[in-house]
Amino acid sequence: MVKSQSKIIARYAETDQMGIIHHSVYPVWFEVGRTDFIKYLGYSYSQMEKDGIMLPLVSLNCVYLLPAKYEDELIIQTTISELKYSNITFSYEVIRVSDNAVIAKGSTVHAFVNANDFKVVSIKKKNLDIYNTLKNSME
Amino acid sequence: MVKSQSKIIARYAETDQMGIIHHSVYPVWFEVGRTDFIKYLGYSYSQMEKDGIMLPLVSLNCVYLLPAKYEDELIIQTTISELKYSNITFSYEVIRVSDNAVIAKGSTVHAFVNANDFKVVSIKKKNLDIYNTLKNSME
Amino acid sequence: MVKSQSKIIARYAETDQMGIIHHSVYPVWFEVGRTDFIKYLGYSYSQMEKDGIMLPLVSLNCVYLLPAKYEDELIIQTTISELKYSNITFSYEVIRVSDNAVIAKGSTVHAFVNANDFKVVSIKKKNLDIYNTLKNSME
Amino acid sequence: MVKSQSKIIARYAETDQMGIIHHSVYPVWFEVGRTDFIKYLGYSYSQMEKDGIMLPLVSLNCVYLLPAKYEDELIIQTTISELKYSNITFSYEVIRVSDNAVIAKGSTVHAFVNANDFKVVSIKKKNLDIYNTLKNSME
Repeated sequence: MVKSQSKIIARYAETDQMGIIHHSVYPVWFEVGRTDFIKYLGYSYSQMEKDGIMLPLVSLNCVYLLPAKYEDELIIQTTISELKYSNITFSYEVIRVSDNAVIAKGSTVHAFVNANDFKVVSIKKKNLDIYNTLKNSME
Repeated sequence: MVKSQSKIIARYAETDQMGIIHHSVYPVWFEVGRTDFIKYLGYSYSQMEKDGIMLPLVSLNCVYLLPAKYEDELIIQTTISELKYSNITFSYEVIRVSDNAVIAKGSTVHAFVNANDFKVVSIKKKNLDIYNTLKNSME
Repeated sequence: MVKSQSKIIARYAETDQMGIIHHSVYPVWFEVGRTDFIKYLGYSYSQMEKDGIMLPLVSLNCVYLLPAKYEDELIIQTTISELKYSNITFSYEVIRVSDNAVIAKGSTVHAFVNANDFKVVSIKKKNLDIYNTLKNSME
Repeated sequence: MVKSQSKIIARYAETDQMGIIHHSVYPVWFEVGRTDFIKYLGYSYSQMEKDGIMLPLVSLNCVYLLPAKYEDELIIQTTISELKYSNITFSYEVIRVSDNAVIAKGSTVHAFVNANDFKVVSIKKKNLDIYNTLKNSME
């Protein structure tokens, strides 16, 4: 199973007055993980959009186990946990490098849609090559 | 049951290159809803932090039903859906004013913690008045 | 001279670990001010983009006089300080409602460009009606 | 003269509906540059805050020369352009790796303040070692 690794350094702008990284930043990190995952498979999300396929979010969940702090070095581990013709689920773990602790876990579900009309499409029919690459990454 | 209403106008900075509001903005809007909910009960979250109680996130989920666009007028409806001694769950609906459509739903779970050491506390023991006010808002 | 007023409540997500609103939020507030200013003149920035005119930033400056805090109620005052055929300068003041203090000042310069090719255009030639409305707002 | 280099990959969440990186993101990138600059000198900004010194912004300016796009690889070059006892000016260049183009330039002025009371201090009196290190980096 393909698992991509994205290195993140927590930014000052991402902190809040509790002194920790604000929870709304984790979905942004997950997205960095997704970008790298797709790049790792030999595609790029930029290219997919130019090819007329977009991946808007259907749902998001995140569990916060330990707070992240400014300047923390973190690894976002990304995998595909489910692939259907019309949607895909990515799963993420946020790992703190200093002690290998998993500080957060989450997942996002995305529809495959046409860029021009936002209609849901079958990725298998629209682009079999991408479908097979995504499918194979799960093995 | 108390249900607070927060008016939001979607900001340009909140859009992404898909032409819609980025999904990471919804947790920020939920937080605006939470702030208003607590204010509506006669407290303020700023004051709670000064009194030594913080409400860090334990988990977050959001379902995206319809995209929001720049300049959309939206209402965030906030309620408490569960209250335990050590944590609280807020639920949210994002409603588009132009057609009353519910465009997103979500919830957040928060621990009650001490501001100085981030240790989980019983809100009932720590501040019975706040506990009762929160509890009563659910009826 | 037209001066629009936009009410803002500082959001928790906008704070940083210094306990104040992060400086990168002010350009977002300025943009809220711009949106309201254009709406006040009877247009909308959304409509201008649909009509093929975009206003990307050429430059930005901001002076921070006093910190803003979470839950602060603020007014963004927006005016046009300069209008040329190919670019426009907006000026902003951020006023704290509790004591009327000006806590920040700034300005942004924007080029008028075609939405399709990002080429700079003369707004006077492209849309005389908008040019005149903007010009008149300065008197 | 010390010039630090910070590598950035533009994030999807940082785009706006113009299809480019939103202008409010550049101050966040400058901050990443600052963090790396101070680390490069052998300190860390986290540590400086723990030692009771904060560097809130006094002013910010940014000139946008070319748009940045999603997935662009960028280098933030950071230097100190001015150092006084009570404030410091950092200067930044944002360079697009693909063609070495300078796509933006900016600077930020920061006051040296006490973490507990936000009073301006002389960094030379407060911490001569940091002052000398910063001063030497300009030669």
